[in-house]
Amino acid sequence: MATSRANVPFARLDFARKARTGFGETVFGPGKTPEQLASIFAAFAEKRLPVLATRVTPEQAEAVLAAGLKVKYHSAGRLLIAAGEKPRAGKKRFRPMLKGTVAVLTGGTADIPVAEECAGTIEFFGGRAARYFDVGVAGLHRLLGVIDKVRQADVVVAVAGMEGALPSVVGGYVSVPVIAVPTSVGYGANFGGLSALLGMLNSCASNVAVVNIDAGFKAGCVAGLIARRTKPAEEF
Amino acid sequence: MATSRANVPFARLDFARKARTGFGETVFGPGKTPEQLASIFAAFAEKRLPVLATRVTPEQAEAVLAAGLKVKYHSAGRLLIAAGEKPRAGKKRFRPMLKGTVAVLTGGTADIPVAEECAGTIEFFGGRAARYFDVGVAGLHRLLGVIDKVRQADVVVAVAGMEGALPSVVGGYVSVPVIAVPTSVGYGANFGGLSALLGMLNSCASNVAVVNIDAGFKAGCVAGLIARRTKPAEEF
Amino acid sequence: MATSRANVPFARLDFARKARTGFGETVFGPGKTPEQLASIFAAFAEKRLPVLATRVTPEQAEAVLAAGLKVKYHSAGRLLIAAGEKPRAGKKRFRPMLKGTVAVLTGGTADIPVAEECAGTIEFFGGRAARYFDVGVAGLHRLLGVIDKVRQADVVVAVAGMEGALPSVVGGYVSVPVIAVPTSVGYGANFGGLSALLGMLNSCASNVAVVNIDAGFKAGCVAGLIARRTKPAEEF
Amino acid sequence: MATSRANVPFARLDFARKARTGFGETVFGPGKTPEQLASIFAAFAEKRLPVLATRVTPEQAEAVLAAGLKVKYHSAGRLLIAAGEKPRAGKKRFRPMLKGTVAVLTGGTADIPVAEECAGTIEFFGGRAARYFDVGVAGLHRLLGVIDKVRQADVVVAVAGMEGALPSVVGGYVSVPVIAVPTSVGYGANFGGLSALLGMLNSCASNVAVVNIDAGFKAGCVAGLIARRTKPAEEF
Amino acid sequence: MATSRANVPFARLDFARKARTGFGETVFGPGKTPEQLASIFAAFAEKRLPVLATRVTPEQAEAVLAAGLKVKYHSAGRLLIAAGEKPRAGKKRFRPMLKGTVAVLTGGTADIPVAEECAGTIEFFGGRAARYFDVGVAGLHRLLGVIDKVRQADVVVAVAGMEGALPSVVGGYVSVPVIAVPTSVGYGANFGGLSALLGMLNSCASNVAVVNIDAGFKAGCVAGLIARRTKPAEEF
Amino acid sequence: MATSRANVPFARLDFARKARTGFGETVFGPGKTPEQLASIFAAFAEKRLPVLATRVTPEQAEAVLAAGLKVKYHSAGRLLIAAGEKPRAGKKRFRPMLKGTVAVLTGGTADIPVAEECAGTIEFFGGRAARYFDVGVAGLHRLLGVIDKVRQADVVVAVAGMEGALPSVVGGYVSVPVIAVPTSVGYGANFGGLSALLGMLNSCASNVAVVNIDAGFKAGCVAGLIARRTKPAEEF
Amino acid sequence: MATSRANVPFARLDFARKARTGFGETVFGPGKTPEQLASIFAAFAEKRLPVLATRVTPEQAEAVLAAGLKVKYHSAGRLLIAAGEKPRAGKKRFRPMLKGTVAVLTGGTADIPVAEECAGTIEFFGGRAARYFDVGVAGLHRLLGVIDKVRQADVVVAVAGMEGALPSVVGGYVSVPVIAVPTSVGYGANFGGLSALLGMLNSCASNVAVVNIDAGFKAGCVAGLIARRTKPAEEF
Amino acid sequence: MATSRANVPFARLDFARKARTGFGETVFGPGKTPEQLASIFAAFAEKRLPVLATRVTPEQAEAVLAAGLKVKYHSAGRLLIAAGEKPRAGKKRFRPMLKGTVAVLTGGTADIPVAEECAGTIEFFGGRAARYFDVGVAGLHRLLGVIDKVRQADVVVAVAGMEGALPSVVGGYVSVPVIAVPTSVGYGANFGGLSALLGMLNSCASNVAVVNIDAGFKAGCVAGLIARRTKPAEEF
Repeated sequence: MATSRANVPFARLDFARKARTGFGETVFGPGKTPEQLASIFAAFAEKRLPVLATRVTPEQAEAVLAAGLKVKYHSAGRLLIAAGEKPRAGKKRFRPMLKGTVAVLTGGTADIPVAEECAGTIEFFGGRAARYFDVGVAGLHRLLGVIDKVRQADVVVAVAGMEGALPSVVGGYVSVPVIAVPTSVGYGANFGGLSALLGMLNSCASNVAVVNIDAGFKAGCVAGLIARRTKPAEEF
Repeated sequence: MATSRANVPFARLDFARKARTGFGETVFGPGKTPEQLASIFAAFAEKRLPVLATRVTPEQAEAVLAAGLKVKYHSAGRLLIAAGEKPRAGKKRFRPMLKGTVAVLTGGTADIPVAEECAGTIEFFGGRAARYFDVGVAGLHRLLGVIDKVRQADVVVAVAGMEGALPSVVGGYVSVPVIAVPTSVGYGANFGGLSALLGMLNSCASNVAVVNIDAGFKAGCVAGLIARRTKPAEEF
Repeated sequence: MATSRANVPFARLDFARKARTGFGETVFGPGKTPEQLASIFAAFAEKRLPVLATRVTPEQAEAVLAAGLKVKYHSAGRLLIAAGEKPRAGKKRFRPMLKGTVAVLTGGTADIPVAEECAGTIEFFGGRAARYFDVGVAGLHRLLGVIDKVRQADVVVAVAGMEGALPSVVGGYVSVPVIAVPTSVGYGANFGGLSALLGMLNSCASNVAVVNIDAGFKAGCVAGLIARRTKPAEEF
Repeated sequence: MATSRANVPFARLDFARKARTGFGETVFGPGKTPEQLASIFAAFAEKRLPVLATRVTPEQAEAVLAAGLKVKYHSAGRLLIAAGEKPRAGKKRFRPMLKGTVAVLTGGTADIPVAEECAGTIEFFGGRAARYFDVGVAGLHRLLGVIDKVRQADVVVAVAGMEGALPSVVGGYVSVPVIAVPTSVGYGANFGGLSALLGMLNSCASNVAVVNIDAGFKAGCVAGLIARRTKPAEEF
Repeated sequence: MATSRANVPFARLDFARKARTGFGETVFGPGKTPEQLASIFAAFAEKRLPVLATRVTPEQAEAVLAAGLKVKYHSAGRLLIAAGEKPRAGKKRFRPMLKGTVAVLTGGTADIPVAEECAGTIEFFGGRAARYFDVGVAGLHRLLGVIDKVRQADVVVAVAGMEGALPSVVGGYVSVPVIAVPTSVGYGANFGGLSALLGMLNSCASNVAVVNIDAGFKAGCVAGLIARRTKPAEEF
Repeated sequence: MATSRANVPFARLDFARKARTGFGETVFGPGKTPEQLASIFAAFAEKRLPVLATRVTPEQAEAVLAAGLKVKYHSAGRLLIAAGEKPRAGKKRFRPMLKGTVAVLTGGTADIPVAEECAGTIEFFGGRAARYFDVGVAGLHRLLGVIDKVRQADVVVAVAGMEGALPSVVGGYVSVPVIAVPTSVGYGANFGGLSALLGMLNSCASNVAVVNIDAGFKAGCVAGLIARRTKPAEEF
Repeated sequence: MATSRANVPFARLDFARKARTGFGETVFGPGKTPEQLASIFAAFAEKRLPVLATRVTPEQAEAVLAAGLKVKYHSAGRLLIAAGEKPRAGKKRFRPMLKGTVAVLTGGTADIPVAEECAGTIEFFGGRAARYFDVGVAGLHRLLGVIDKVRQADVVVAVAGMEGALPSVVGGYVSVPVIAVPTSVGYGANFGGLSALLGMLNSCASNVAVVNIDAGFKAGCVAGLIARRTKPAEEF
Repeated sequence: MATSRANVPFARLDFARKARTGFGETVFGPGKTPEQLASIFAAFAEKRLPVLATRVTPEQAEAVLAAGLKVKYHSAGRLLIAAGEKPRAGKKRFRPMLKGTVAVLTGGTADIPVAEECAGTIEFFGGRAARYFDVGVAGLHRLLGVIDKVRQADVVVAVAGMEGALPSVVGGYVSVPVIAVPTSVGYGANFGGLSALLGMLNSCASNVAVVNIDAGFKAGCVAGLIARRTKPAEEF
């Protein structure tokens, strides 16, 4: 395994992650200079491996794109994505079959960046994300208008700030797990997302689990793993 | 005003409150012995004035009833009520015309004691309370089944624990003020009602105001004042 | 209802809100570019509908005004207001009769922006706001000097930071609901408005309900609804 | 649907839940007298439907058993279980195929009641629970000794108090979702489970989602839904 | 100084405190058996020195009184007081001249035990306490009715729970220091006195300082020291 | 009293405060433009009355000084002071006799701005402040080296951040009140001064009262009132 | 290692711990019946191995003693101790040479149970504990009277509640590590030990590290490990 | 000792610290201008004494280096170090024999600045620091790959943000004290390091003590003192 991990001066990169877990490596954008991020993407490109960077600023993205690398900047989700190349035929493990669909909902428009981070992550891992944004509970007709489609998904991600009530309402309408993502959207006694976090943890719907505040990436990981609908041992 | 206030040894009673504000005096039950509570009710009975006691235990109620006083124990709301006598004809101020109706909703059955404290208080002050209990958001068909009736009310009181999402959902369906009452119902990270309190304060519905945790009495007072639908100055 | 809602690329606008609820649409200013805000106001102007934007910066306001739209910038309350045109005669629902008056009080001068946001909102919805600013409890003669006028109002909004004691004191003097607005004014152990929020939630006055920290807009909505003093069903 | 819901005087029971969602009804034990609980189980027995009660005390269980009902008391998990009868042949929806296995881990022995509540819930819904208790991170050889078996599961539930580090460590070893359950086990600055809750929410493992403190039942619901590994729409 | 301190098996007693500081020794009642408390009072009685015990239960008091010691049980303030004997003539330091008067106010009747602990402490140290109870801000006429007398005091102690607004209002009427004592009186979001504590710390009145929640004894000590109105160095 | 209060457009000024309370008016600097502050000082200068501004920036101070007004900028305490003119002979009330001395201590050098705000306030009101800075408890020889001088003071102000232990240690050495001022100095788990605040509120020394975090001005007011050592009624 | 661990029905016991780490096994008393605790001690006695139980009630201790086992009940520290037998000669690893001395200090008498738990733990592991109790900072002469002896220790454990200032003051006098133990002793705003915990974490002395609230056992473990003063690798 | 302490205008410097405690003086960088810092280093250089500055910015460092002083800027740890000159032969006390080694671990790369502050401090005091960075628990093979080397250390410092689980896992592998340093690394519900802090305080490993959030310097001091492995009294 000695060759599977390289240390650029500013980060330890795990080139074997894809082979080991079926999922590409991901890096956290904040705190890295545009040049550092470009170096990381170059290192993965050299090995034709996929890599995902989260919370990427336009300046960082521009630097990587300027380096001539084959990446896509998902600006709404602040993601920088290098898809990597498809594995050789027969290598079953190189793309986990995320057969299912993840419904990604938001309460308001201000929650969209977190939701897009989640949806983009799901797509990076090979899953399908169906977006239903701005369907918050204070105007319930919006949610009711799409609920039949939401019920088709294998798992629901519900992203909301303020009182964070969306997962509870959705949870009552579906028979799949709901991954709740509290956001820091709001003001005053929302205490940076604490109100939504507590609301979601105390949801009276029994099919709701919660990730950290604004944690779109983590919600995408968890929901993606749920959506693949096949026994893990069969895949690897 | 010297005669309007009497000090039994353990409490200062305001016999003039009815005349001054149009509402009867209220006393807080906890911390008073059954005998003390009986003395208070006797003092008001002597003056034929109404009085309401909140958070009254069955033991306290029994003591007052045993004293032969004309009171009613509202056990579900833990209220002890002496209606007083009607004022002399022409004395307009002696019964505020709470013409409207207050819809009192709860998320679950465990919230009912707080809701009954609220409803009983409204009724003590002469208003009407329409009860819609156990209509929490995780099984939304329950709320939708009664929402048309709720919309007839002049003001809504929404009582809920856990994530406290009920006021937000109801708030989107009505064009009247919603008084939200967080309850301490729940466990774990509900922190004694804090989760519901924060959820309600951060409600994305713009017609929601909040009272203290488990504050059924206060919700009844505020909602009652809203429901009377007449200019206060005309009444007094 | 397909035509009642338009999606500019960056926001979902509810053009039917006025017809549905009797109140004009409102948008939250923060996070929108001046150009986006101008587009929103243009869209409503085209339909001759009223719209209110809150927490609007001078730069945003300037952009909208520069677009030649008929709006008014209420700088003290950080509101941008397009009044819309009066509905056709006989359309009772197009202007809720907010017959009553809302007394808007502040503890200090630093609370005024929140109070003006509240007062401007009330006026946008067609109500009357009577302002009594800088009447905090540590110099009680100031409040006592205006209390007789405050008592004429149909509902009181009390805006205060620091210890947030104003609603309790006012609440004892009036027989109408008091909507308490905690502000983040203060320093040290005020914890961004938490001290005022807790103070108001624990008010010993039984006619006090609370909205979120700095939530002038929400206080205006709730107080406006209380002030109209007519049965909602009669209006619509 | 009128006949699918019966109101015993003290609770609203949902007899249609099994038919609607594929899962039996559940009731919360605390706050119910032994007699009330027995009545609830009798009502379901009459309809030959499954029902689960959580947080049941030995006294409550004894009362139900004494009523001659066919129930099983799962004392370690404080669960009272009536399995109901198997649906008629061909009725696919009457037992969701929870084909997968849920690995249920605890950090210490004091976390076992919560873990058993989770495991018993999974089993009530027809799933398989594999228990690995007392494998906390401060003696890592315990976890490493079972990790290969844990990796066979479709989903992991990690139950821990104190610092709540177990999900993070397990999360790094598996490619399935980890449902983390913080417990109130600990003392001092654990603040009733807050330390474990925050630890789990902030897990650096990207496949960890969290439920409320001590919420074994909810963890069982979420994990059971994940474990069935088939497209929900196919089942119903 | 070897003889000035005796260790009974369960406590270290400071017999020299009176001589050193001008104030008698005080002991904290909770956690001591009635017998232990009696031993402590006996030890002081032997030396004819004053001693004060706080938070004394009726059972503890009875045990000390039963031992035939010359003590007084101040039940309202939960204090047990042995006055000691007057020092020999000419020993100026043996009774600090607490010439002034401390006005002790409470917001409600439930705050009285804390206020009596304060008043009793002041009296133990030789000062005068003027009591004004149940003068909370939600019925301001009560405070205004006594404010002229309160203004005669050298220092004010304001005891209040719930929102803790009393010190702010009183502080605006007097030109002496106000020692604010938050109490745990209240419920819900008062969080055991936190609401009153924060309210008092954030008082907009500039002459207010605060002691711990329910700290009647400490308020008595601080206020007593303020009230003596003579340069300390002259006394000792 | 109509003439005693003037409203410049941006502030309500109390010109009668000196006459009414014996202390000059004070204004809070933050949020005022340099020009506004200059206007305020000009208004008081016209009436030859004293005025104190707190938290004044160098830019604000420069603007006032540039206006040719007779003020002094106390940069260490961020105070701007206009002493006013001495009252006519015989007007006893125009300078409260703050005969005593206030010892102002700090734990570290970073606490000095708060301490200077306190000391400057005391001096503005005519009292004497004796400074003992950087005498924190982790190097106790520093405090012990000055403790004999501190013991000469009529009241002690102890300013400290971090763990806020200074008041407890000083409190044990003096027989006068100690006003504790927690500061926001520190980092990490000091939570903006909360650690020092809680430490001081829980001081085991019985002569310690506390003001808000960083509240040097308030500490100066309270300590100044304590230090005057004469019956208030005699002065006015 | 298969034989080194035995599972009694209610606990997993680590019989190899002594051999592996040089320290005897410890068990947490709470939640175990007296009979269970007796079984555990019997199991260790059979193997002649040492074992320590913490937070043991008198009832539990009595049961173990009644079983005829050779144990010692350290009631002040709530510890039950079985010393085990000395290892065979030459087995260096069977008693870590805790050559040093640990000074164990408390602020007050109420902190003694925690301190004794710490001291007893040190002694169980073979170290020496020097006790200096009731030397809190508000009467500093008590600490100064013993500080020279404290300075002889290899490590200091400082146990204190309330403001938790003791470690800071001691830390300035010694050149060894200070292990600070916050206790829940206090009332009001001590919030169950939070005030002492925050105080100790923010200590301005640079040689202070902290353990959990009331964690006497853990402090004993850490201090004991520090005190042995020999390179660990030499021992094992 | 009069000559051992010099007051530059902006700081009190302790030139005798090295002689008194065996450790050089340290100063806190933040809040000092580059010029002030240069003056401090010049003052120590003049006396040929060692001095350490923490949290030094590149700008500050540049200013000191530009002054021609013999210092080293440890940019990774933000430390500025003047080693001082070796003491005269025979002066045993002038360099404490920190014979041992401190293993300094981090969970992630973002924790490195805090870890380097710790390691640099240890080296300044003459100890050895062995760095093991980026060995967090979610990829446990990284820690297991170095654990044998970590076990050679005399004391371990574990630096981690987010859930702060590293100390618990390491603590189970070593028989030496583990000093845990929570960092503010993370987002959302990490609340500025609170999650890691609580996790570490509640560690189930009994050999873990904790310092303040981001307190690399303090961890270095405590660990350095532990590592010297000789009786303090022998050294001085």
